[in-house]
Amino acid sequence: MRASAFHLSTTKEAPNDAEIISHQYMMRSGMIRKLAGGIYSYMPLGLRVIRKVEAIVRQEMNDAGALELLMPVVQPAELWVESGRWEQYGPELLRVKDRNGRDFVLQPTSEEVITDIARNEIQSWRQLPVNFYHIQTKFRDERRPRFGIMRGREFTMKDAYSFDRNIAGAQESYRIMFDAYQRIFSRVGLMFRAVSADTGSIGGSQSHEFQVIADIGEDLIVYDPNSDYAANIELAVAPCLIAQRAEPVHTMNKVHTPGVKTCESLATFLSLPLSQTVKSIVVVTEPADQPVEVHLLMIRGDHELNEVKLGKLPGFEIGFRLANEDEILNHFGATPGSLGPVGLTHKQAGATQPARIIADLTVANMHDFVVGANETDFHLQGVNWLRDLPEANLIADIRNVVEGDQAPSGKGTLSIQRGIEVGHVFYLGTKYSKALNATFLDETGKPALMEMGCYGIGVTRIVGAAIEQSHDARGIIWPRAIAPFEVVVCALGWGKSEAVREASLALYNRLVADGVDVILDDRDQRPGVMFAEWELIGVPLRVTIGDRGLAQGQFEIVHRANGETLLVNTDDAYTQVLEELNQMTA
Amino acid sequence: MRASAFHLSTTKEAPNDAEIISHQYMMRSGMIRKLAGGIYSYMPLGLRVIRKVEAIVRQEMNDAGALELLMPVVQPAELWVESGRWEQYGPELLRVKDRNGRDFVLQPTSEEVITDIARNEIQSWRQLPVNFYHIQTKFRDERRPRFGIMRGREFTMKDAYSFDRNIAGAQESYRIMFDAYQRIFSRVGLMFRAVSADTGSIGGSQSHEFQVIADIGEDLIVYDPNSDYAANIELAVAPCLIAQRAEPVHTMNKVHTPGVKTCESLATFLSLPLSQTVKSIVVVTEPADQPVEVHLLMIRGDHELNEVKLGKLPGFEIGFRLANEDEILNHFGATPGSLGPVGLTHKQAGATQPARIIADLTVANMHDFVVGANETDFHLQGVNWLRDLPEANLIADIRNVVEGDQAPSGKGTLSIQRGIEVGHVFYLGTKYSKALNATFLDETGKPALMEMGCYGIGVTRIVGAAIEQSHDARGIIWPRAIAPFEVVVCALGWGKSEAVREASLALYNRLVADGVDVILDDRDQRPGVMFAEWELIGVPLRVTIGDRGLAQGQFEIVHRANGETLLVNTDDAYTQVLEELNQMTA
Repeated sequence: MRASAFHLSTTKEAPNDAEIISHQYMMRSGMIRKLAGGIYSYMPLGLRVIRKVEAIVRQEMNDAGALELLMPVVQPAELWVESGRWEQYGPELLRVKDRNGRDFVLQPTSEEVITDIARNEIQSWRQLPVNFYHIQTKFRDERRPRFGIMRGREFTMKDAYSFDRNIAGAQESYRIMFDAYQRIFSRVGLMFRAVSADTGSIGGSQSHEFQVIADIGEDLIVYDPNSDYAANIELAVAPCLIAQRAEPVHTMNKVHTPGVKTCESLATFLSLPLSQTVKSIVVVTEPADQPVEVHLLMIRGDHELNEVKLGKLPGFEIGFRLANEDEILNHFGATPGSLGPVGLTHKQAGATQPARIIADLTVANMHDFVVGANETDFHLQGVNWLRDLPEANLIADIRNVVEGDQAPSGKGTLSIQRGIEVGHVFYLGTKYSKALNATFLDETGKPALMEMGCYGIGVTRIVGAAIEQSHDARGIIWPRAIAPFEVVVCALGWGKSEAVREASLALYNRLVADGVDVILDDRDQRPGVMFAEWELIGVPLRVTIGDRGLAQGQFEIVHRANGETLLVNTDDAYTQVLEELNQMTA
Repeated sequence: MRASAFHLSTTKEAPNDAEIISHQYMMRSGMIRKLAGGIYSYMPLGLRVIRKVEAIVRQEMNDAGALELLMPVVQPAELWVESGRWEQYGPELLRVKDRNGRDFVLQPTSEEVITDIARNEIQSWRQLPVNFYHIQTKFRDERRPRFGIMRGREFTMKDAYSFDRNIAGAQESYRIMFDAYQRIFSRVGLMFRAVSADTGSIGGSQSHEFQVIADIGEDLIVYDPNSDYAANIELAVAPCLIAQRAEPVHTMNKVHTPGVKTCESLATFLSLPLSQTVKSIVVVTEPADQPVEVHLLMIRGDHELNEVKLGKLPGFEIGFRLANEDEILNHFGATPGSLGPVGLTHKQAGATQPARIIADLTVANMHDFVVGANETDFHLQGVNWLRDLPEANLIADIRNVVEGDQAPSGKGTLSIQRGIEVGHVFYLGTKYSKALNATFLDETGKPALMEMGCYGIGVTRIVGAAIEQSHDARGIIWPRAIAPFEVVVCALGWGKSEAVREASLALYNRLVADGVDVILDDRDQRPGVMFAEWELIGVPLRVTIGDRGLAQGQFEIVHRANGETLLVNTDDAYTQVLEELNQMTA
C-alpha cells in the first residue's frame, strides 16, 4: 500500500467525548469516525486492525473444530418470546416492527436463533458434538454508550454455541473453547487473565471471563499471585477475616454522634479503627403474593457490599432493591446513617414483619463493634453478639474481596487489578434447549435435551483494549499481530530524489513480495510531521530512507515500542527488517 | 476439511415456498435456512460460497484502488432527512426508534453516511479522487420477499462510493469500476451482460447494470448480437418501425365491436393484423397547484407501454398514474376498451381541460389504423392522421423494444434475454454532495461540490444467480471459483478398509498442502447416497477411492459439470486432479 493511495486522516486533537486514551487515539489516528452515540464507522485504518483480529479469531475457532455460519442481524421476536428473553431483556434490546407490524429484534446475541437451527438440524446423537460460530454485527442499546468502540451500541462480536449429548461432552467443548481463547488472546498480543465469573443473565452454571489488564477497565479482577486462582470481584470468595469470635470486653453504651453518617466519620469521631465499625444496609425483596420483606445487611466499615453474591442468597434470586426512606423509618425509627441491628424487635412494633439480619462472615465473628443506635445521631459502642443482640438470621459472604485478603488456597494474599472483558465462555446447560425444546435422539433412541455452551469475543472491543494496554504519550504501540501495517517505509524527499524513490521502492517491493504488510509513505511530507503521524498510528517498525543516509549506504530502522534505532547497510536492510519483525513476540 | 467434522445436512425435498431452482437447491443442499420471510441464516456450506464471492469482490476492488471501510447497519435518521430520502423512501426503509426515542434506519444503502464521512474527511482537492467501499449487511423491507436470498430482506451487498473533483474525474472513476466489475463477474464464473440502465430513484445520469443471463430473471435485457449495445428494456431505445407515413387508403368508418376490449380480440374480430391496431392508454399527472392533466397514450397493438420512458417525458418527472374509471368516462364518454384519439375536443366539452395525445414513434407514422370510437362497443377503422384527427401533441419513444426491432447501430436486429441484476454502477453527480453540502477546496481555493459515483454488487444474490445459470436435474454445478469445495475425495468403505483410508488421506493431505479446497468424505455412507449428496451440493470434481479401484491401482475422477470420468493411476492422481482443476475456466 502506498500512503498516497490510502486515506490517512490524523488530527492533533481528540473530540471532547473521548474520555479515555484508546478512544482518543482511535479518533486522532483516524481509525474510527462517530456517526451517532455509540455508533461508529470503521475507517480503512481501523478496519485493517479489526480484520486482523477477526482473522486470528476465525483461524483458532476453525482449528478448534468450530464451524462458521452467519445468522441474521434482524431476528423474529417469536423466538425471543419462546426463550423468555423478549420479556426479560431490558431496553438494551432494540425492538423494531416490520412493514407488516411483525415484531423483530436487532440481535444483541444469538442463543435463540442458533438453538432454533439446532433443533431443526440435529436429529441424532451422531451429529453431536457441534460448535457453530459467527462473526457479526451486534446491537445493544446501551443507556450510556462511551469509550468509543469499547462500549458502543453497534459492535462486532464473535459468538459461538456448542451442542453436546451430555454434561461431560459440554465440559469438553467448554475446555476446547477455553484453550482456544487462551491462544487467541496470546496471538493478538494482549496481557490478559482468564477469571471465574458470574453467569449473570445469560444463565448457566460455569463461566470464565477473559480480562485484558488495563487501568481503565470497568471490571475488578481478584487473583492469587501464587496460584492459578483468578475471579471477577463479583464472584471472588471473600474469607472471614476473624478465625474465632472473642469474648466481650466492654459494656454496650450509647454515644451521641451529631452529624456522623458514615463509618469513616464514625471511626474518626470515636478514634477507633474503621475495622471496628459495622455498616447497616437495608434492602427489600418483594416475593410474589407475599408481604415485602426487609433485610438489614451488616458489613464491616472498611468493606463493601457485593450485590452479585447477595443476589444468589436464598430469597434474593427474585431480585432486591434498596429500602426507601419511608420503609427505613417504619422499620427502624431512624434515618440512614444511624441504623443498626440492636433492639429491632422492640422498634418494629408497627412493622408488617421484623427485619431479617444478614451478617457478613467477618462481621459474624466481631466483638465490641460499633453500630447505629436506630436513633438519629446516636451510635452504640461495645456491641457484642448474643449478649446485646441475637445471632444473625443468616451469615454469608456478601462483601467484595479487598487487596490483602487471604487467598482461597491458604497461601499468601489476594491482589486486585482492573480488567476489560474481551471474552467470555459460558456453560449454559439446557437453559435454551429446554425453552426451545431442542432435543435429539440419544443412543437408546430416546429424545434428550442438548447441553449447550456459549462463547463470545468482543472483536471491536479487543482493539480498544489493546490500545489501553499499549501506548505512550505519542500514540498507539500495536502488537505486530494486529497492527494496521507492520512496517512503514518513510521516503524522505520522495519528490526530489530519484535515489530515495528507487531505494524505497526496492525495499517496499521486496517486503510486499515476502508477504510483509508494509506501507510506503510517498506523500513527500516533512520528516517531523511524517514521523509523528506514524507514531500516533503506532506501526511497529519504521524504516527511514533519505539522501543523507543513502550517502553513507545506510537506512534507519526504528522500533515504535521503545525507540530503539538501528542503522543498517542498505544491502542488509531487507533481512534486518524481517529479523526485527520475527523477534517481536506477537 | 473432513466431512465427519463438517455439518452436512441435505434433504430430498425443498419447502413449498421455494419457487425457483436456486432457492430449492440452496435449501436442499443445506446452504441456507429460513429464519423469517426474506431472512435467512447462511449455514457453513452456504457461507463458504459467499465468502469466496466476497474475496473476489474485495480483491478486485482493492486492485482498482478502492479503500475498504465499514459503515454501521444502524444509521441516524438526521442524515436521511438531510438527503430527502427519509421522506422519499417507501416502506422498504426499516425505521426504528432507539431507547431515547431517536429515529434510526437500518441501512438499505449508504449514500448518506459516506457523504457525511466525505464532507468531514475531505478538505482539499489533493485528497481526491477517493473511492470507499464496504461489504455489509443490508436490510430492505420488501413487500414480497421471495426467491430465497435472491430477493431477501436482509442480504449482503458490496457498495462503493467514489468522490472526484470534477465530472471528468468521476467518469474515470466510473470507468475503473466498470472494468473492475467485468473482472469480478468473469472471475466468479458467470455469463453476464453489462447493460445501460435507468438511474431510477438513486438519481444521477449514467448507469449500467450487470445482468446474469437466466430465464428466471426479473429484468429484460435488450442487446444487439452484432455490437456492444445492451440495455435494460426500461431504457433500450425502440425505433420507429415505419420510415414514412403513407397516404390514407380507406375512409374512416365506425364498426360495431360487441364485447371487444383488447387489441388482440379486435384484430381477430376484424381479421386484421395486430400491427394495424392502436391501443389507447389514459394516464394522469397531477402538477402542484394546477388542475389534473389527462394524457392519451397511443401504442401499436402489438407493443407495450414503457413506463420508465414515459416518466422521463416533460411533465411526467413528477410521477403519473393510470386514470380511474370516472376520469375516463368524464373525458372520453366511454369505458376502457373503446377509447381512442378521434373527436376528443367534441367529447370533452365538460372536462376541465382537453386530453393531450402522446403517440409512440411508430404509431405516429401509421395510416389506416384502428382505434376505439369513444363509444362503448364501437371502434373506428381506416383512421388517418391529419385527415381524421390532428397531429399528436407529442411524438416520443414510449414503448418497450420487442425482439426483432432494428438495432440502434442500424445493423441487424435486437434480441431480448432475461437477466438477474447482480451489479450496478451509477454516476451520481452532485445529488448527494449538494444535499449534504459535501464540498472541498479546489485548486483555486474555492469550495466545490464533490462529484460522486456509487457502485453496488449483490454478494448473496450472485450466489443464487450462479445456481440459476448452472445446474442440472441432480443439483448445482458450481464454477470452481465459488464452489464450497473444489474437490471431494469420496472414500468408499472408510470404516472397513485400511487401504482406502491410507490412500484417501494421502491424496487429501497432498491436496490440502497445495492449497486445494478439498473435503474428504469419511462418513462411511453408501456410494449412491454419497454421490447424490455431492452432486446436489455441486462440487466440481469428485475423486472416488475404493478397494475395487485400488486393486487395479486406480482412482476415479468425475467432473460434476458433464459427468466426464477418468480412471487414473493412483500415483498420477494428484497431478491429474490439479490438471483437471486448472483446465476449468472459472
